[in-house]
Amino acid sequence: MNKKAVCLLSGGMDSSTLAYLARNQGYDIYALHFMYGQMTEKRELACAKAIAESLNAAEFLKIPLAHFSLIGKSSLTDASMEIEDYGEGDPSLPNTYVPFRNANLLSIATSFAEARDADAIFIGVQASDYAGYPDCRPEFIDAFQKVMDIGTSQEAKIRLLSPFVKMNKTDIIKTGIKLGVPYELTWSCYKNNEEACGRCSSCHFRLEAFANAGLKDPIEYEAGL
Amino acid sequence: MNKKAVCLLSGGMDSSTLAYLARNQGYDIYALHFMYGQMTEKRELACAKAIAESLNAAEFLKIPLAHFSLIGKSSLTDASMEIEDYGEGDPSLPNTYVPFRNANLLSIATSFAEARDADAIFIGVQASDYAGYPDCRPEFIDAFQKVMDIGTSQEAKIRLLSPFVKMNKTDIIKTGIKLGVPYELTWSCYKNNEEACGRCSSCHFRLEAFANAGLKDPIEYEAGL
Repeated sequence: MNKKAVCLLSGGMDSSTLAYLARNQGYDIYALHFMYGQMTEKRELACAKAIAESLNAAEFLKIPLAHFSLIGKSSLTDASMEIEDYGEGDPSLPNTYVPFRNANLLSIATSFAEARDADAIFIGVQASDYAGYPDCRPEFIDAFQKVMDIGTSQEAKIRLLSPFVKMNKTDIIKTGIKLGVPYELTWSCYKNNEEACGRCSSCHFRLEAFANAGLKDPIEYEAGL
Repeated sequence: MNKKAVCLLSGGMDSSTLAYLARNQGYDIYALHFMYGQMTEKRELACAKAIAESLNAAEFLKIPLAHFSLIGKSSLTDASMEIEDYGEGDPSLPNTYVPFRNANLLSIATSFAEARDADAIFIGVQASDYAGYPDCRPEFIDAFQKVMDIGTSQEAKIRLLSPFVKMNKTDIIKTGIKLGVPYELTWSCYKNNEEACGRCSSCHFRLEAFANAGLKDPIEYEAGL
């Protein structure tokens, strides 16, 4: 029997590459996708589903989360706040920050992993995230592993794996190209327009990474980019 | 301005006493209640609301959580599983165990606390819980505090307080009686009958605690108890 991995799969570039990496390492994929009221919720769901299908995932579980919107304080989940473009706002805490989001997502992933007797959880945090997001830092991942070890039943032995945590997005794309990740199925833009905006920080880092890797991003961007 | 505390408020005996204790310590109460598909969801909500009102809570936030039911594996959220009575089943892991529940609830509480600039989170875990529930142990609380410290923004200084962690339910009731907790407004039974069953482990420990404190539980139990 194969090992089982719960993969946090947003439908973006990093998490899609990560799920391919997990499969390449011999894991059956239990894809976990979150709908938390972000503007791009529907599109991300479609992308995550398409990636999970392309991977023959053993399970695709989508979780609706009402509480980030109810709690507020992030431009990703509060329509009255403007999403900052790259370079705007406070670089030490962008307004796209959702307070303590990754602990929320990893807690659900751990519940899912424990219920399915999974061996691992894969999360795609990476270096350029943790300038602004405290819950993406390697120390955070280490501390969360301890909470998992203590807070699950004795039989559960779940490893929290973040193989991209010291990689940048250029390295991630190079890895993904080797693994055959269909990047045309992924979506990274924070805004919900027909084509990616090319200006939010998520687009900025994605475009920069494709350029650094000497590749063309296969998704469409707004005219002029 | 008063200090602010996020209080996890299920509407049961422990969490209601805890919210009264927090108010007694000078905190404004930000009550946080979860509806996660447990059989007694509606009744618990009514109790939690009544307690929050009796406390003049600054905010009462109820959070619907779909994922525990979707993930399954607990008799509290899966109607096809029978809720064990006290003394039945595996005492080291009762079938009422919801995998990693407290990490999920504390993650949401931390997001809420960070968004409201709160000073503390109160959680009512106590000694008789942690025979069976790994996510109620003092080591778990300590490990989670570290995750909170690392995973929130630099400005956030949120203390995770579990003043009952080494108390038993008898001590908690004695504390609550001094604080004037209206126990007639609380509900502990795992089953969703008109009156509390008196036989599930939650009823068992509640009744035992009232008896040990030399008091009569003001809620109704099924005939013969």
